[in-house]
Amino acid sequence: MNIRFYHAKILLTKADHTFEVAEGELWVRGDHICYIGDGTDTSDVCKEDDIIIWDREIDAKGNLLMPGFKNAHTHTPMTFLRSFADDLPLQEWLQQKVFPNEARLKGEDTYWLAILGIMEYLTSGITSNFDMYIMQDYHINAYVDTGFRTVFTSGLNNFTDSLEVLEENYLRINKLSDLTSYVPGFHAEYTTSRPLLEGVAKIADKYHAPVWTHNSETEREVAECKARWGMTPMQFTESLGLYEHGGGGYHCVWLEEKDIEILKKHHMSVVTNPGSNTKLASGICPVKRLLDEGINLAIGTDGPASNNCLDMFREMFLVTGLAKLRERDASCMPAEEVLYMATAGGAYAMGLPDCDCLAAGKKADLVMIDLQQPNMQPENNLVKNLVYSGSKQNVKLTMVNGKVLYEDGTFLIGTDPAEIYTKANEIIGRMKECR
Amino acid sequence: MNIRFYHAKILLTKADHTFEVAEGELWVRGDHICYIGDGTDTSDVCKEDDIIIWDREIDAKGNLLMPGFKNAHTHTPMTFLRSFADDLPLQEWLQQKVFPNEARLKGEDTYWLAILGIMEYLTSGITSNFDMYIMQDYHINAYVDTGFRTVFTSGLNNFTDSLEVLEENYLRINKLSDLTSYVPGFHAEYTTSRPLLEGVAKIADKYHAPVWTHNSETEREVAECKARWGMTPMQFTESLGLYEHGGGGYHCVWLEEKDIEILKKHHMSVVTNPGSNTKLASGICPVKRLLDEGINLAIGTDGPASNNCLDMFREMFLVTGLAKLRERDASCMPAEEVLYMATAGGAYAMGLPDCDCLAAGKKADLVMIDLQQPNMQPENNLVKNLVYSGSKQNVKLTMVNGKVLYEDGTFLIGTDPAEIYTKANEIIGRMKECR
Repeated sequence: MNIRFYHAKILLTKADHTFEVAEGELWVRGDHICYIGDGTDTSDVCKEDDIIIWDREIDAKGNLLMPGFKNAHTHTPMTFLRSFADDLPLQEWLQQKVFPNEARLKGEDTYWLAILGIMEYLTSGITSNFDMYIMQDYHINAYVDTGFRTVFTSGLNNFTDSLEVLEENYLRINKLSDLTSYVPGFHAEYTTSRPLLEGVAKIADKYHAPVWTHNSETEREVAECKARWGMTPMQFTESLGLYEHGGGGYHCVWLEEKDIEILKKHHMSVVTNPGSNTKLASGICPVKRLLDEGINLAIGTDGPASNNCLDMFREMFLVTGLAKLRERDASCMPAEEVLYMATAGGAYAMGLPDCDCLAAGKKADLVMIDLQQPNMQPENNLVKNLVYSGSKQNVKLTMVNGKVLYEDGTFLIGTDPAEIYTKANEIIGRMKECR
Repeated sequence: MNIRFYHAKILLTKADHTFEVAEGELWVRGDHICYIGDGTDTSDVCKEDDIIIWDREIDAKGNLLMPGFKNAHTHTPMTFLRSFADDLPLQEWLQQKVFPNEARLKGEDTYWLAILGIMEYLTSGITSNFDMYIMQDYHINAYVDTGFRTVFTSGLNNFTDSLEVLEENYLRINKLSDLTSYVPGFHAEYTTSRPLLEGVAKIADKYHAPVWTHNSETEREVAECKARWGMTPMQFTESLGLYEHGGGGYHCVWLEEKDIEILKKHHMSVVTNPGSNTKLASGICPVKRLLDEGINLAIGTDGPASNNCLDMFREMFLVTGLAKLRERDASCMPAEEVLYMATAGGAYAMGLPDCDCLAAGKKADLVMIDLQQPNMQPENNLVKNLVYSGSKQNVKLTMVNGKVLYEDGTFLIGTDPAEIYTKANEIIGRMKECR
């Protein structure tokens, strides 16, 4: 498909983590952006006998095209546990509510539950995710079938998956589709034995791959790891050689000085999950400090069982709001930095450098934001409007890899929403009967 | 207008601050709800020769009718400063950005800017607000003309308004319309002289009226008041007899033990403003403690210049999320308490006991929530869905005083949205030229 957007405002990302708004046209050819400009000099794009036949021309009516959000940490199929186990501390929530019900999950369930999550991503302008879950054989197909971009990582732990499955998935999913990729990972230090961790390090080394895990999410996790190994989770996992090819940590709320040195040494990224960290009372990630240290930052919703929604607008407000509270400084983490984290920072963390911004040659992963809504007016500063007053209500269109998957409230992913809702209710209904 | 909703889920508020979901019909007759039930026994409503002629019958298609949100603290016409002065500490923001531009505001500007705010309220399912602003002569008409319910309070301070204007407005606005009421108030202790405060106390006493103000929003405000008067703002204002007929405080982030005793003694309410308090790095209101003390709690967005959006879904998540962080307890401030604050608690704080819940005889201030969206599925617990994953995107219809003012993205308030956006941009544009 070749799609031409005209009469658009276009959000351009700058190297210094700020943005510029251009006015004009954005052209999509197949899976990528081939032109951004005012539509006059297009000689770079259309050589002499190369005329683009438009499948669709969209009048943006002055609305804003921006890079799609990257949801850099989530557990998509956990939609079935939304509003099922709230207002509990993390360990109790995990041990008493999550693990027993996950054990009742059938492989094919994860396919339908992932589609429900993908639908929610699209309503929030999210164009790719960094997904960790069990039973990946089934749920990977939800991405292929709907056309959503995903980076998978393993949730390997002492009870689920194996090193063999991890390596197999690494080889298979990286080749499966243009939309799917895979990096080695494990659930967390506190759920994964030392031999397994050493095995992950070997696989990472074999393929020169980065490694990702839940890291230092709660104070208790860090204290218990120190009691076990005399080191923080970051220090212990690094000591096993896991980050020789980079990678990063999800959450990273309770970091020590040495942990920050490790992040810098291995050029690792940190994904912050403020919605989940507030709801589970885990604490506030020191994003300001990490930013000052030059560490690449990204934002994730975490799974729908702990958040409970997959809404990057809420996460963006929380990133800046919580940083301001933590540092007691209303000027810290300005809107531009937060929007950069939610788009370019996420792309770099996920190994998707072609999805970081809107520019000719980049993948066409983008969103059209409805500015003709009261929360986007007046247009004093569009970036601040997005971060401080933006909402899912403003997402008019979400495009992944050049295809429109969501437009004006309609999902274009090949399934009937009502069927997905029915499936999700049936799955959790079946589990309730088991109790 | 008489409107019948059928095939609805209906959220019923219980005295213990929990909720129940009924299925059936809700009937609106003129400005009030006249029936809730399954549609079979309606003898209480339709006496022998009293047949209701329906102007409209709405198939709710299984969606949820709930009481409208009460935005219990805001400064509506400040929409012009949205995204104009962010990432600054409160005092600098107020002195350098807000006050100088407010001085350039013309009375009629506040009319258009208030309509922009009202539109945003409607998109968020807000059916009434507790509004404090200057130049109320103009902006009150925005409420009358659009049909939105408001409770006004004075922003009296040393530079704006007077005791005479306050009393005049009290008498005029309380009689102006079914939709408008007025309670005495002043901006804050730090902007209002002692003689003025004593004058407010006299007016409150004359009319047996409650008094409202910004109270203990920042640590600095409390410290400076203690340096001035040897007492906190709560203690000092109480010592002047301001709360003999109740009232309450907006923000109340930095409370001392004696302050809490004062709130209890005078049966006062507290309106928490978590969006504004995070964005301005003011701190976290001790809502858990206040709840345990039995103090009535409500939620406000604060003005669009400090928040920057008028979104009760974001505020609800912040109320519970910040309380969980502050108390380091994921089980504190469960969703039910938060939803109660956002609806019934707000109504009581604002002196609108007929707008607290859905029941026969209550005012028809209600919202229809679209449950056929991915963030509302599965339907494990609708109250938790609303608080933890709800969004403006789910607001299908907003009704105030029996009239539908917003439905499926369309505003039914007698003005063209594009005209309002143009006005708002013109007003701030004019100010930018002044500099």
